[in-house]
Amino acid sequence: MQLINHADALAARETLTRLLGTAGPVRTPLLPVPESERERPLLLKPESLQPSGAFKIRGALHATAVLDERTRSRGIVAYSSGNHARAVAYAGRTFGIPTTVVVPHTAPATKVAAARSLDAEVVLVEVAEREARAERIAAETGATLIPPFDSPAVIAGQSTVGLEIAEDLEARGVSEATVLVPISGGGLISGVGAALAEAAPRTRLIGVEPLLAADTRESLHAGRRVDWPVSARTRTEADGLTGQPSELTFEHIRTFVDDVVTVTEEEIGEAIGHLAGTCGLVAEPSGAVTTAAYRHRSAELPAGTTVAVVSGGNIDPGRLISSLAG
Amino acid sequence: MQLINHADALAARETLTRLLGTAGPVRTPLLPVPESERERPLLLKPESLQPSGAFKIRGALHATAVLDERTRSRGIVAYSSGNHARAVAYAGRTFGIPTTVVVPHTAPATKVAAARSLDAEVVLVEVAEREARAERIAAETGATLIPPFDSPAVIAGQSTVGLEIAEDLEARGVSEATVLVPISGGGLISGVGAALAEAAPRTRLIGVEPLLAADTRESLHAGRRVDWPVSARTRTEADGLTGQPSELTFEHIRTFVDDVVTVTEEEIGEAIGHLAGTCGLVAEPSGAVTTAAYRHRSAELPAGTTVAVVSGGNIDPGRLISSLAG
Repeated sequence: MQLINHADALAARETLTRLLGTAGPVRTPLLPVPESERERPLLLKPESLQPSGAFKIRGALHATAVLDERTRSRGIVAYSSGNHARAVAYAGRTFGIPTTVVVPHTAPATKVAAARSLDAEVVLVEVAEREARAERIAAETGATLIPPFDSPAVIAGQSTVGLEIAEDLEARGVSEATVLVPISGGGLISGVGAALAEAAPRTRLIGVEPLLAADTRESLHAGRRVDWPVSARTRTEADGLTGQPSELTFEHIRTFVDDVVTVTEEEIGEAIGHLAGTCGLVAEPSGAVTTAAYRHRSAELPAGTTVAVVSGGNIDPGRLISSLAG
Repeated sequence: MQLINHADALAARETLTRLLGTAGPVRTPLLPVPESERERPLLLKPESLQPSGAFKIRGALHATAVLDERTRSRGIVAYSSGNHARAVAYAGRTFGIPTTVVVPHTAPATKVAAARSLDAEVVLVEVAEREARAERIAAETGATLIPPFDSPAVIAGQSTVGLEIAEDLEARGVSEATVLVPISGGGLISGVGAALAEAAPRTRLIGVEPLLAADTRESLHAGRRVDWPVSARTRTEADGLTGQPSELTFEHIRTFVDDVVTVTEEEIGEAIGHLAGTCGLVAEPSGAVTTAAYRHRSAELPAGTTVAVVSGGNIDPGRLISSLAG
């Protein structure tokens, strides 16, 4: 199986820069947290500050950018109710092409409104029909389906996060560091791993999952993909982390990821409150798991400089309030 | 009167880079807000993400960096209960020198704790005695007093914000833009103005004040510094904006600032909620006034690309909660 590598990461960034310039993903800085422990200084990578509120626009923009112009002009389609839908809607608007997002009836009105505010057509369906409907739309209109993670172009887009981390660690004179990345379908950690493997080979890459959706931890230890039923995976409030790796992303994870740690729901909530109360960042539960791991799983993590990728910030205000009230 | 200019801004950045490298201020990006109006796209400059939670570390680090080594080793001292105290404490820790912060008895415990957590010695005094006590400490110990704004070295440090805005606007191909900056003592807007005047001469620089602390608007229109009593200026909840320009900063403001707009307390609260709910950023009231102006004073502002400097993020969690509950 062909894995994404450092050259693909560089090529993805070059494509994004050439086609989009500053309309592409924001180059997010590493933010030092002065309140972190001295023997393991924490740096946050705030992907929550991307225009759609999550790292997902990197993959969505890149997967759209690599289409030939004629194909691209026929539009793009996605099925998701979360950050991927918003990212694909953002990509469609950026390229000025027709965009359809297939969303379950049950999706919160705010998420539907977010996609609509980015000019996407929103098609509401039963949950079980999402994928089939998206594929039918693609077949009928010639639009291209942009998958949330099971795609080399999407993974290559996410890998630009890893390039930036490697460059910013090098600027700090840090070669050995621990990089914490949330795992759901595995697109982000696959890309980050591919980039870091060559650009910062002495970093340790550690995935983070909610204890209630720790299928990848179990899979990594078993050496094969272990399936957790949806009913089990969706117990966590980190609604962005209920996916499972595909064959493609699992192969990346086996190759590039050193370990996976888990965090409890309480720890996720505490981390949301800490990020907003001390670091100036609004994180959604999925985006806060890495900070939760830093704060509550230090015994399982190496000492030294630690990078926590804050993957997204699209949180319900009521949930943010309850974390702040702590 | 000698004003800070573009060359001073470049020199300040060079000094910070040479002495501190990545331990200096974070180079914050411009964050596009997709939800903004198309004919006046909004870009946020999130200085709230600096390590001490505000732009103030730029001035404090630079004013400390320009001291000769022997003077610097005797330490630094500041009187303030807010972001300047935190910034000076951070600068002291960064340079590894003795640091004293003189704080009124009445300061919230969290602010005292923040300074202490950065290893500063905190001296509690009566409000009226702050300045005299800080000067006595400086005289007795040989420490250098770092003023919050009335200092060329501090203004030059803040001017690096303007350099970055100019560079990032140029990268976007934008030459005409409106830049919104909060005004209190005027150190930030003086520095930003000095940098933009040469680096982006077609930008318009507009200050923002709370309606309840609009002394600088009145002063600018009168053509001379108008004094508002402390009791009037402190009615606003934007506790970082209750200062008044000095002769030095007022001369910068007269030279570089095109206009000053004001915002109400309600508008500030709404902007805090918007920044956290939509943009992923925690802003304190003083940091939210520019976004409030963008959202509620569009009739008084030019069309086109608008940059809002989010100057700080040190907000009481309870206040953030009430804005989110809005």
